[in-house]
Amino acid sequence: MRVLGIDPGYALMGWSVLDSEGSRTRLVSYGCLETRAGDRMPDRLRVLQLGVRDLMTIYHPDDVAFEELFFGRNMTTALMVGAARGAAIIAAAEYTRNLYEYTPMQIKLAVTGSGKADKKQIQQMVKLLLRMDEIPKPDDAADAIACAFTHCQAGVAKQEFLMK
Amino acid sequence: MRVLGIDPGYALMGWSVLDSEGSRTRLVSYGCLETRAGDRMPDRLRVLQLGVRDLMTIYHPDDVAFEELFFGRNMTTALMVGAARGAAIIAAAEYTRNLYEYTPMQIKLAVTGSGKADKKQIQQMVKLLLRMDEIPKPDDAADAIACAFTHCQAGVAKQEFLMK
Repeated sequence: MRVLGIDPGYALMGWSVLDSEGSRTRLVSYGCLETRAGDRMPDRLRVLQLGVRDLMTIYHPDDVAFEELFFGRNMTTALMVGAARGAAIIAAAEYTRNLYEYTPMQIKLAVTGSGKADKKQIQQMVKLLLRMDEIPKPDDAADAIACAFTHCQAGVAKQEFLMK
Repeated sequence: MRVLGIDPGYALMGWSVLDSEGSRTRLVSYGCLETRAGDRMPDRLRVLQLGVRDLMTIYHPDDVAFEELFFGRNMTTALMVGAARGAAIIAAAEYTRNLYEYTPMQIKLAVTGSGKADKKQIQQMVKLLLRMDEIPKPDDAADAIACAFTHCQAGVAKQEFLMK
């Protein structure tokens, strides 16, 4: 099974591609889609939608796993990142119905086995579990890898989009 | 000039088409895109994107005017409506770069001349100004008409998307 992991963001959208077979998981590729701060919002959203479309056509993932967004109280941020996330979801949904979403806590537990792990510990475990030479950069890409890894984990209840 | 007005929403997205020439403004059509509460989020976003795409190809508007979203404190709502708005913006941006956005206050002032008008008064003015037999329904469609009317108003500074 091939999984595309996505950490939705407006300026940076992390992505990863993992292959999993039984208990073996292999990192195929990872990176970030970037949009420029000076560009207009419609153009930035379009870059994200086309970027995810490219990832779908290049890697042909069976499943797509999104990290669920979590916010403080900034409404403007929620609107923009919500739009970025929507752009990614629409692009992925053009290719597959197998879209999933995991909370930061589910990812933390799946990767480290502990709900108390911090970001650094998650990244260390991602590096270890996927036999990488270095901790993946930037954070957004590392988050996307952790998210796809969570989806690959046997025992993790696959979680479809529940939001109505 | 032909204007497509959009009142972004997730369950209901109001739209309107107005033609304006000099000080004359004519209502061409209006309605709502609807998504079903029982459907999955990716499918609902797709309905909205394809719906706006249809409106663009059917009516060929020169400009598109969005009503700016305004929220209380519900983050989940902001995320979902942000995604819906993003889907509409992306679809419109495929056809034109002329995308504009107006705040509820700008719309209120343009339609009624007063910042104190309530929703009912705005709808009454829309009916009057566009020589309609009845107040347009539902509210989402009426809002979209008021938004497009605002864009048509001579004297209103056309407001491009400022959000980065």
